[in-house]
Amino acid sequence: MNLPVTPADIAAAADRIEPFVHRTPVFTSTTLDREVGGHFFFKGENLQKVGAFKARGAMNAVLQLPDDVPGVVTHSSGNHGQAVAYAASIRALPAWVVMPRTAPTLKIDAVRSYGAEVVLCDHAEREVTAAAVADRTGAVLVHPFDDAAVIAGQGTVTLEFVDQVPDLDVVVAPIGGGGLLSGAATVGADQEPPIPVIGAEPFAVDDAYRSLQSGVRQPGVATPVTVADGLLTGIGARAFTILTALRAEVIRVSEAAILEAALFHLQRMKLSVEPSAATPLAAIRTEPERFRDRRVGVIISGGNTDFAWLSAAMALASRPQGS
Amino acid sequence: MNLPVTPADIAAAADRIEPFVHRTPVFTSTTLDREVGGHFFFKGENLQKVGAFKARGAMNAVLQLPDDVPGVVTHSSGNHGQAVAYAASIRALPAWVVMPRTAPTLKIDAVRSYGAEVVLCDHAEREVTAAAVADRTGAVLVHPFDDAAVIAGQGTVTLEFVDQVPDLDVVVAPIGGGGLLSGAATVGADQEPPIPVIGAEPFAVDDAYRSLQSGVRQPGVATPVTVADGLLTGIGARAFTILTALRAEVIRVSEAAILEAALFHLQRMKLSVEPSAATPLAAIRTEPERFRDRRVGVIISGGNTDFAWLSAAMALASRPQGS
Repeated sequence: MNLPVTPADIAAAADRIEPFVHRTPVFTSTTLDREVGGHFFFKGENLQKVGAFKARGAMNAVLQLPDDVPGVVTHSSGNHGQAVAYAASIRALPAWVVMPRTAPTLKIDAVRSYGAEVVLCDHAEREVTAAAVADRTGAVLVHPFDDAAVIAGQGTVTLEFVDQVPDLDVVVAPIGGGGLLSGAATVGADQEPPIPVIGAEPFAVDDAYRSLQSGVRQPGVATPVTVADGLLTGIGARAFTILTALRAEVIRVSEAAILEAALFHLQRMKLSVEPSAATPLAAIRTEPERFRDRRVGVIISGGNTDFAWLSAAMALASRPQGS
Repeated sequence: MNLPVTPADIAAAADRIEPFVHRTPVFTSTTLDREVGGHFFFKGENLQKVGAFKARGAMNAVLQLPDDVPGVVTHSSGNHGQAVAYAASIRALPAWVVMPRTAPTLKIDAVRSYGAEVVLCDHAEREVTAAAVADRTGAVLVHPFDDAAVIAGQGTVTLEFVDQVPDLDVVVAPIGGGGLLSGAATVGADQEPPIPVIGAEPFAVDDAYRSLQSGVRQPGVATPVTVADGLLTGIGARAFTILTALRAEVIRVSEAAILEAALFHLQRMKLSVEPSAATPLAAIRTEPERFRDRRVGVIISGGNTDFAWLSAAMALASRPQGS
């Protein structure tokens, strides 16, 4: 198969970005192992630079730009914006990050803290605005997910993971644009025996599920409403090609399951995990029979959150049983 | 010096409890290193069994009880109650945990989840109630801190820490009853060169500070009000003896500094840290000049919290600068 990203691309990315990213730790949970009856290993990319795996893909893309590039630009209200700002700062390149006017001050400040310039616009105009910045400045666009260098960078999470935890039977990761999961699938397919991957996706934005089921890339949901705000984007073309070829599956999860999973990470595992990154645990608890007696690698994709979801999660947890 | 606990006691405790506790990971923070200008290493006892270092001391005490002991009893509204319940469950011993009627359901449920029986009473009657349970059942009291076996168990945190991170210049840990800090001081004094220890204590309950300053053990504060609810108890007699002999120091911290530190752990380091366990970071940021250019070991003592403090911490963090 001639896929957009190869295992060799991911190995090269790992060497390239190694000085600039963390080899993140792996956590376990006796409570979860007992609850489900499997063996679960959690790769803590919430402890990655910028608080999310996105540092890897952005770093791999930015490091490959020619020396005379006038800068980089991206549009992102989330972790990819910080990741590009961080990667640009490493190369001392100017960076522009297009963000919606409604973005929280915290996120804007985080991008600025890496020295990037924030360009505010209406959400609907973000791509046009980023293109205008590129035209004006000559900056190169670093796409959040539909880019081979970005996907190769995200694949390094799983390359590290299979080195840290031998004999994984399956890897579960969130799916939004699909960069993380398609990188995982590429690495997984290259193992002996191959390790299948499962995406975790909110029911509210289940275009990846529908795309992989139908074999035709489906549009994203027009006005998605989910607590997993990192997974709002539709699946990218390159990710769709890879995940279809490598037969990835998707488990869909409810908002309540996401909240309960994020609370479990926080209260039982003592880890700050953003709701998007709690979807794999939600998937495991939604379909536990698929993971019984298996060695399961779970990618905790990020930990950047304002905890606005916490009170709802706690209210949910304190419901009388059976209600 | 003939102190209540020796380095050999702590080494023996480490061997004894090793099968039943986690070797907890060490975390770092580039942001903090840059902010203070030192090198900080955080020992994550929030990821310990029962979510706190208390598992070590309780385990060490309970493992040394004779085979025919009819059970164990303690009084604690916090982590030590869970720790004794956990340790008793390992030995399949009955356990009674005396807790105040006002204890949160979450904490009561946690103790019960290890199979212990919870005995509710008024806070003022907790010691009498525990003694009555001991009389009635023959159960042995496991004191939360003023007990040589418990202190030796807590000392294993620091024994592990100096093995994981060589050449520490100083270790900072919270001080309540003093079990954790006096164990750390015992290990620190045994290193070559010796490693001094610093306790972190809220201004609101500064009896340890006043005790070590005056050379006379001072009573605890009558009606303490602090977000660091794990540090309400006064310093124990054994801990006072050890910490005086080994010249431990104490840095006092404000409630605002504790909240800001707990939020830093959560938002920047992605770790759930209970307010009591955030006091060392608060101490470092209160007197940063003492830690500049040094290699600083910080013990994150626990991660059990209901996050009731979070909204106050966030409000504090979003204050305009200079106010």
